[in-house]
Amino acid sequence: MKTPFIDDLKWSADAVMGRRPGSILLKNGLITNIFTLQRELGNILIAGELIAGVGVEFCDSDAETVIDLQGATVTPGLIDGHLHIESSLVTPAEYEAAVLRRGVTGIVADPHEVANVAGIAAIEWMMEASQDLQMDVWFAVPSSVPATPMETSGAILSVEDIDRLLNHPRVVAIGELMNVPGFVNGDLQELQKSMLTHNKPHTAEGHAPGLIGRALQAYLGSGVSSDHESTTLEEGLQKLKAGCFLMIREGSATRNLEALMPLLDPKHGDRIGLVTDDRLPHDLLLEGGVDFVVRKAIALGADPVYAIRCASWNTARHFRLQRRGAIAPGYFADLVICDLLEGFTATAVIKDGRFVSKSLTTSTAADVPESIRHTVRLPNLDLSSLQIVARSGSIRVIEAIPNQILTREQIVTPKIRDGLVVADSDRDLAKLICVERHGHHGKVAKGFASGFGLREGALACSVAHDHHNCLAVGMNDEDILFALNRLQQLGGGLVVVNQGRVEAELALPIFGLLSDRPLNEVRLALESIDNTAKSLGCTLPSQIMALSFLGLEVIPELRLTDLGLVDVVHGKFVELWVE
Amino acid sequence: MKTPFIDDLKWSADAVMGRRPGSILLKNGLITNIFTLQRELGNILIAGELIAGVGVEFCDSDAETVIDLQGATVTPGLIDGHLHIESSLVTPAEYEAAVLRRGVTGIVADPHEVANVAGIAAIEWMMEASQDLQMDVWFAVPSSVPATPMETSGAILSVEDIDRLLNHPRVVAIGELMNVPGFVNGDLQELQKSMLTHNKPHTAEGHAPGLIGRALQAYLGSGVSSDHESTTLEEGLQKLKAGCFLMIREGSATRNLEALMPLLDPKHGDRIGLVTDDRLPHDLLLEGGVDFVVRKAIALGADPVYAIRCASWNTARHFRLQRRGAIAPGYFADLVICDLLEGFTATAVIKDGRFVSKSLTTSTAADVPESIRHTVRLPNLDLSSLQIVARSGSIRVIEAIPNQILTREQIVTPKIRDGLVVADSDRDLAKLICVERHGHHGKVAKGFASGFGLREGALACSVAHDHHNCLAVGMNDEDILFALNRLQQLGGGLVVVNQGRVEAELALPIFGLLSDRPLNEVRLALESIDNTAKSLGCTLPSQIMALSFLGLEVIPELRLTDLGLVDVVHGKFVELWVE
Repeated sequence: MKTPFIDDLKWSADAVMGRRPGSILLKNGLITNIFTLQRELGNILIAGELIAGVGVEFCDSDAETVIDLQGATVTPGLIDGHLHIESSLVTPAEYEAAVLRRGVTGIVADPHEVANVAGIAAIEWMMEASQDLQMDVWFAVPSSVPATPMETSGAILSVEDIDRLLNHPRVVAIGELMNVPGFVNGDLQELQKSMLTHNKPHTAEGHAPGLIGRALQAYLGSGVSSDHESTTLEEGLQKLKAGCFLMIREGSATRNLEALMPLLDPKHGDRIGLVTDDRLPHDLLLEGGVDFVVRKAIALGADPVYAIRCASWNTARHFRLQRRGAIAPGYFADLVICDLLEGFTATAVIKDGRFVSKSLTTSTAADVPESIRHTVRLPNLDLSSLQIVARSGSIRVIEAIPNQILTREQIVTPKIRDGLVVADSDRDLAKLICVERHGHHGKVAKGFASGFGLREGALACSVAHDHHNCLAVGMNDEDILFALNRLQQLGGGLVVVNQGRVEAELALPIFGLLSDRPLNEVRLALESIDNTAKSLGCTLPSQIMALSFLGLEVIPELRLTDLGLVDVVHGKFVELWVE
Repeated sequence: MKTPFIDDLKWSADAVMGRRPGSILLKNGLITNIFTLQRELGNILIAGELIAGVGVEFCDSDAETVIDLQGATVTPGLIDGHLHIESSLVTPAEYEAAVLRRGVTGIVADPHEVANVAGIAAIEWMMEASQDLQMDVWFAVPSSVPATPMETSGAILSVEDIDRLLNHPRVVAIGELMNVPGFVNGDLQELQKSMLTHNKPHTAEGHAPGLIGRALQAYLGSGVSSDHESTTLEEGLQKLKAGCFLMIREGSATRNLEALMPLLDPKHGDRIGLVTDDRLPHDLLLEGGVDFVVRKAIALGADPVYAIRCASWNTARHFRLQRRGAIAPGYFADLVICDLLEGFTATAVIKDGRFVSKSLTTSTAADVPESIRHTVRLPNLDLSSLQIVARSGSIRVIEAIPNQILTREQIVTPKIRDGLVVADSDRDLAKLICVERHGHHGKVAKGFASGFGLREGALACSVAHDHHNCLAVGMNDEDILFALNRLQQLGGGLVVVNQGRVEAELALPIFGLLSDRPLNEVRLALESIDNTAKSLGCTLPSQIMALSFLGLEVIPELRLTDLGLVDVVHGKFVELWVE
């Protein structure tokens, strides 16, 4: 955690007492006090990085620079308590460029996705790539790499690895303890993980979608302190009552704010946070980060100052982010100026006492070491690798559902040609492939998916939660093979292929998960992929992201990892063929 | 901080999931949920030290022992966030005996007084004397020993000493940073002290009576995080708005609850605490500890559950006392059962999962090592040591004010007999002596006090905030000398002497500050002292405690330390004689 300069501490006292001018006086601001939930007209005196004083008693002669806010609102900088930078498909610098000017001055990032590809090296890269940013980037150490033994991840993080990473000065938590059955069963290894935070300034972060009743209590009893997965009011209320710091999430894929609005109540004090979890490039650019959640909460009727508190002080308090999240003497000067709190649209942002440039320039290509550009290491593949030999019986098919992460299992009679099972556009049956890509054993798992509506060509991606092996869906083996090989050439990415040609693509050379290009380029590439997929008949919204979730074997019902088809409901591998 | 047993963590999960019975089921309790401020009928399942689960779903078969509460209220154990055990004049074990059965399951003690006598050794004795108690005793390390250079304390604590003591597992804070002028001036040594808590799980506790406006902001900017000295609503509100964890104090000498009641509002969430600071033996026995503050707050109209939260969760949160201060799975089972929350009178208390015996037996004499029984080391005194030679002019007199710590300066013409200035009962002028008692230089400071109303005899004490040199007030030098010598014989204490005889006394052999006897004996001895002093004409209430504050040179107007008369308003020594 950043330590204030002792010189600025002294300067603050001197500025407040009139012995030396502060750096900036913001006068006539409508100041948001998150301790009393009031707004009050007054002045803010800044000395270096710090807020020196707040109140009407400070005047022009107290600072070198005086800025008249003419009644504009001032809030603390927002802090997003849980997100994955990976969801934005860009580097930390690009993420900052998108949200800092909107008033997000700090984030707690969980590098769970890159860690699944390259373990500690990937986490360290994220730390390095964020260390010189203006925005505060704190980290939660991924706790569950791999998420389950039913997939092959690129790395494994042990309890010892996690414990060691907790010593990093910007690490504030153990992230998303998601092995709920482990905790409910009282597994010692999971209890050991949550106990790592005891007598340390860290928190143990939760991840328990849908968990209620006895199992919720068993899970929380381990010492897990938060949850961001509630989707219903009853679930949220149970978690709040049981002691969770309840993070209300409004992401791109999952939007829970409306359902949980009744919990956004000042009487819940410090127990509610607002977070984004994941925001896709389009949403990040057009709606914003956690500032969007605040704006929406206010629009839905929340007490505006309490909404701000839930995205600043409450989050700072939960993670014990010292001197952050409020407008008070001794706090770092992280401030947002906006015309009206009700609309929360930043007109200016101050970070650590300095105005943030309105157009943060972003590098045209991030400085990415060669070593992390080559994490897609597929086996040698040919058409025979992808073939499924026909036999009698029906097959299991993964049905993708529009706008949901959930899938359903279908049982269908396959289409057979020349003794092989093949895709069938008449019945919307596409072939689905998952190939181990971390260079371990190169296993190829085969199945079928419905719901995409593809009529020709193939889609492929190196993003596949949480193991990030390569997934491809297509109407013929030639295009699937071509698409997979193209991923290897790109070092990872998203591709749309038809008749042996790349129709649209986005390279994600950083761990096969992140682009090295500016966010807007990424957004445009995604739009092009979307349009191209549609031209191939695809009817599924956000089809390439939907594909990336077909390998997520912790969410029901049926999934395909590199090790095979997983019946998530029963927690076991199943055969393609139903007897 | 206490770590839960891994076995109990596993037992909790097993009990919740029905794999193994828990130890106790409390059923049909009206359970206080401090996260939602609600009360709800339900059951609490305990497994070993921990709360395993809370809710209606737990039933008789879930535990080895089932207790039907028949609708009685259950609250979390109370935590007192700021107090000096020394004010009770008894050992930590005696303090526990007084408050644990009332529902106080944890305290944050600041051993400021004993530290002024014997430094690190005294703090370590307090730690040892509290380590085997059932009640949690956490510590704030005294930050200001000595309080000022205008007194001679028995020890000095350096910044390095404080830093080292922070490593003790039960130390949670740096206590009472009281050198307000130092912070306001931006003194590096004071800033260094508050910065010791940065990037540590500790807090920097404040102590700023009456401080408002710019000076308050300069003080808090250093990183001081709390204050317990507010006496008016305006002062309290300013501190709350400026980011203080506002501890509302209701002690024996200082009672601020009524004035600050409007701040005890649920919208202030986690920002308000209830504390006692100091409770004298009589009050502790008859009214209680922080349970009394909760009871009074409810009687004055506070939301009962919020009042509980301010003396449990909010305090736990401020000091980051993990798994304490709430009734929720994974928390230590610290519970108070009472008939009605509105009256808050404990009928039973559970600490770490076990019922507390209603009559804690207390040792008849605390086991006190010889080394700390002899801290009153006076110089050789005779009558000439106490004499004041007459000269022309008026003298400064310290006027004690009933029921206040403040004193006033009077200027009077002295009574002179045989060339010496003497006491004058007609004008209520008593001689006042302060003798250095730590064995350093044995200086004797002399002056006069009014307001006591003594007609004969002398009072003396080895309690003299904060330096704890020996103070005596009396109507003749013979009795003063006798009283001081008696203090030396006792190893410290409080004595009333008349005509060369001890009329009443209380030995305080532990650092000259604490008794080794049970609390009730101490209370009776104090009552006897009070009655005896009255029989000597004394009209000042709590005269022996009033005497003990006459040496406190940080509170206006005039004081006497071993180094002389202090004009507190101007922060300087002054002569007895006014020219």
